[in-house]
Amino acid sequence: MNVAVQAVPRTSSAAAPPARLALLGTGNVGGEVLARLEQLGRVPGGGWSLVHVRNSRACISDRAGLRPTDAGERVRGQAIAAGALPEVPEALGHDGLRIIIDATASDAIAARHAEWLAAGIHVVTACKLGQGTSLERWRSIRAAADRGGAVYGDAATVGAGLPLIRSIRELVAGGDRILGIAGVLSGSLAWLFNHYDGLRPFSGFVRQARHAGYTEPDPREDLSGEDVRRKILILARSAGHELEEHDVRVESLVPQALARLAQGEVDASLAMLDGDMRARFADARKSGCSLRFVARLDQSCARVGLEALAADDPLAAGAGTDNRLAIEADRYRGQPLVIQGPGAGAAVTAAALVDDMLRIIRGPASHH
Amino acid sequence: MNVAVQAVPRTSSAAAPPARLALLGTGNVGGEVLARLEQLGRVPGGGWSLVHVRNSRACISDRAGLRPTDAGERVRGQAIAAGALPEVPEALGHDGLRIIIDATASDAIAARHAEWLAAGIHVVTACKLGQGTSLERWRSIRAAADRGGAVYGDAATVGAGLPLIRSIRELVAGGDRILGIAGVLSGSLAWLFNHYDGLRPFSGFVRQARHAGYTEPDPREDLSGEDVRRKILILARSAGHELEEHDVRVESLVPQALARLAQGEVDASLAMLDGDMRARFADARKSGCSLRFVARLDQSCARVGLEALAADDPLAAGAGTDNRLAIEADRYRGQPLVIQGPGAGAAVTAAALVDDMLRIIRGPASHH
Ligand SMILES: NC(=O)c1ccc[n+]([C@@H]2O[C@H](COP(=O)([O-])OP(=O)(O)OC[C@H]3O[C@@H](n4cnc5c(N)ncnc54)[C@H](OP(=O)(O)O)[C@@H]3O)[C@@H](O)[C@H]2O)c1
Ligand SMILES: NC(=O)c1ccc[n+]([C@@H]2O[C@H](COP(=O)([O-])OP(=O)(O)OC[C@H]3O[C@@H](n4cnc5c(N)ncnc54)[C@H](OP(=O)(O)O)[C@@H]3O)[C@@H](O)[C@H]2O)c1
Repeated sequence: MNVAVQAVPRTSSAAAPPARLALLGTGNVGGEVLARLEQLGRVPGGGWSLVHVRNSRACISDRAGLRPTDAGERVRGQAIAAGALPEVPEALGHDGLRIIIDATASDAIAARHAEWLAAGIHVVTACKLGQGTSLERWRSIRAAADRGGAVYGDAATVGAGLPLIRSIRELVAGGDRILGIAGVLSGSLAWLFNHYDGLRPFSGFVRQARHAGYTEPDPREDLSGEDVRRKILILARSAGHELEEHDVRVESLVPQALARLAQGEVDASLAMLDGDMRARFADARKSGCSLRFVARLDQSCARVGLEALAADDPLAAGAGTDNRLAIEADRYRGQPLVIQGPGAGAAVTAAALVDDMLRIIRGPASHH
Repeated sequence: MNVAVQAVPRTSSAAAPPARLALLGTGNVGGEVLARLEQLGRVPGGGWSLVHVRNSRACISDRAGLRPTDAGERVRGQAIAAGALPEVPEALGHDGLRIIIDATASDAIAARHAEWLAAGIHVVTACKLGQGTSLERWRSIRAAADRGGAVYGDAATVGAGLPLIRSIRELVAGGDRILGIAGVLSGSLAWLFNHYDGLRPFSGFVRQARHAGYTEPDPREDLSGEDVRRKILILARSAGHELEEHDVRVESLVPQALARLAQGEVDASLAMLDGDMRARFADARKSGCSLRFVARLDQSCARVGLEALAADDPLAAGAGTDNRLAIEADRYRGQPLVIQGPGAGAAVTAAALVDDMLRIIRGPASHH
């Protein structure tokens, strides 16, 4: 394949028929994707046409192209679909440049990614259940993308589009081994440990974070570390370490007694977190350290849990809900590459999805 | 241009004739490029062939392919060439995938970049004199790359391959405006201000940095801020702000009396730096701040100079010769994207050059 061909300036693609897009999910992230597409749509020659929008209950299709925000409102307002929803590939058609944007958290959808890729349909996803669960599913997605000549856009799955996965892949492509990765990969847990002061009860900060929308409605989903397990799996696998889920040792912050409760009882019992956390905070402080919820990959072993970090640790910095990642590689031995920034939130996540979509449409030559 | 074509797996290019490479410069960086190519050469199917190596005095050519380190030794060992050296494009041939790697600091070479690009030859460079000097030269390089359908690989020019320029370009490609950039962009000045303690004289640290190879042989080149001016110009222009050189206000650390001396007299007179620096350090300390040599772009105005930064400023962190860059964009308002890591040194710089070269050979599909 000749690079001179790829470097042809973007204008040459203006003549190509527009890429057809399907958006799955009209929640926080999906809504922001629609808003961003609406804005982009005002720029002529964008090279895409939104032909299908769906959520778990309804869908809308138009091969002539939908107005993004209008389509979102109509899907959200629709009654529950009578029968089964049509297959997404049906709605997209059987040829040309087709892209599915997955803004759901649906395992059933993630289970279809490989099949779509194998059919030559590009998939752009915010959902970690494709690459962050079983190794088998990761492998089938990678193999299907190769087989179908399709792109799997995953920048939104870890760090909401911060150049984390991409930087790891660039180092690997340049011949470097990834020697270690350490990161603060959960915006909600970053916020909690950036604010917890050891004086006021930890449970109060958890409530505050939930009200600000930083945690899931059930904060145990964040505190269990399972979301971070998926993220370190995606990073490790991108770095060439093909770990199974159980290769990651996760230390949950949720005591067993709290884990057993029904969701409705959780809020009243959050104080179960407080005693242990106060003790750990005091311990850390004694040695001048701060508590951080960290994911680490050292060669082929990974772990996720609370750590006491010295003040000059690259992961101890950052503010608010910032994600942070330190990467050691052959060329960055001892002195890591560190990337930090907003790694959660519907707006940045949607921007990352749309970036991946645009990269597919424009072709990577647009980077130069 | 159809993305499905670009996403064809890498193996498809194995049949293509190998890219022909010319390396200009066999100094610190050029020597490391040769070592890296030698290592890569052991992996079969690399898809390239080194056909020309030169420095300011001599050159060696072989269309059948040179052994990298051997070629370097032969060029370094050659007597001064009798006549003019041949033109680089002659040595590379007139068709196929051709790449020039510029590891010189030569303005005469940088002045040729545009012409080579326009002829369809890809250029990969560590030298800032192409994009970091006059706006006219920047524009002619950009226009020539478009015209020639050639790639200008510049990752090594700022931050020695840290994903700085690339992250800015990705944000711009995604439709974001770059609202501000602030960075510590000189490894030597980072080291100086990470170590200067206000007690021992600043000049002693300058000498130590020079002996460690962090500064140029004449440390005034670092202390003048001119190198940082070029770097912020490259970043600003990549962000869409087409600044002229004089749009960057540079505050040199070199007093006039020191600037006037011949190079041989500098070392004995470095103490001229000490009084002023001691006072500035004490001032900063009074308000709990640290001194850092910072480059800043706010919308269309840029400046370079010493600043007193609060402890929680994203640019106050980092150690050793680390570069650091904070980027504010539409999606990162108030909470910047921060990238930090080793941003100088011959080995990382050479790795960045070879990465850019491999990206051109493999085609950008290899990123997915
Ligand atoms: N929010 C963030 O900060 C953030 C950051 C990074 C990644 N993510 C990821 O982004 C994804 C979306 O998050 P969110 O906050 O937008 O969630 P959300 O608000 O709960 O929205 C999920 C959407 O997916 C739809 N959906 C569920 N199952 C579906 C199916 N089988 N077919 C079609 N649509 C289906 C839902 O439909 P209904 O409307 O019918 O329920 C809803 O519209 C998740 O994977 C999340 O992990 C989020
Ligand atoms: N070192 C770093 O950490 C670093 C980091 C980032 C970027 N860079 C950039 O990388 C470049 C090289 O740095 P370096 O430290 O390797 O410098 P260096 O050791 O001084 O080597 C420069 C090389 O360029 C050759 N050269 C000069 N003019 C030439 C010409 N007209 N044609 C062909 N070759 C010519 C020199 O030839 P002779 O051998 O005949 O003198 C020498 O081999 C510079 O632009 C520098 O700014 C360096």
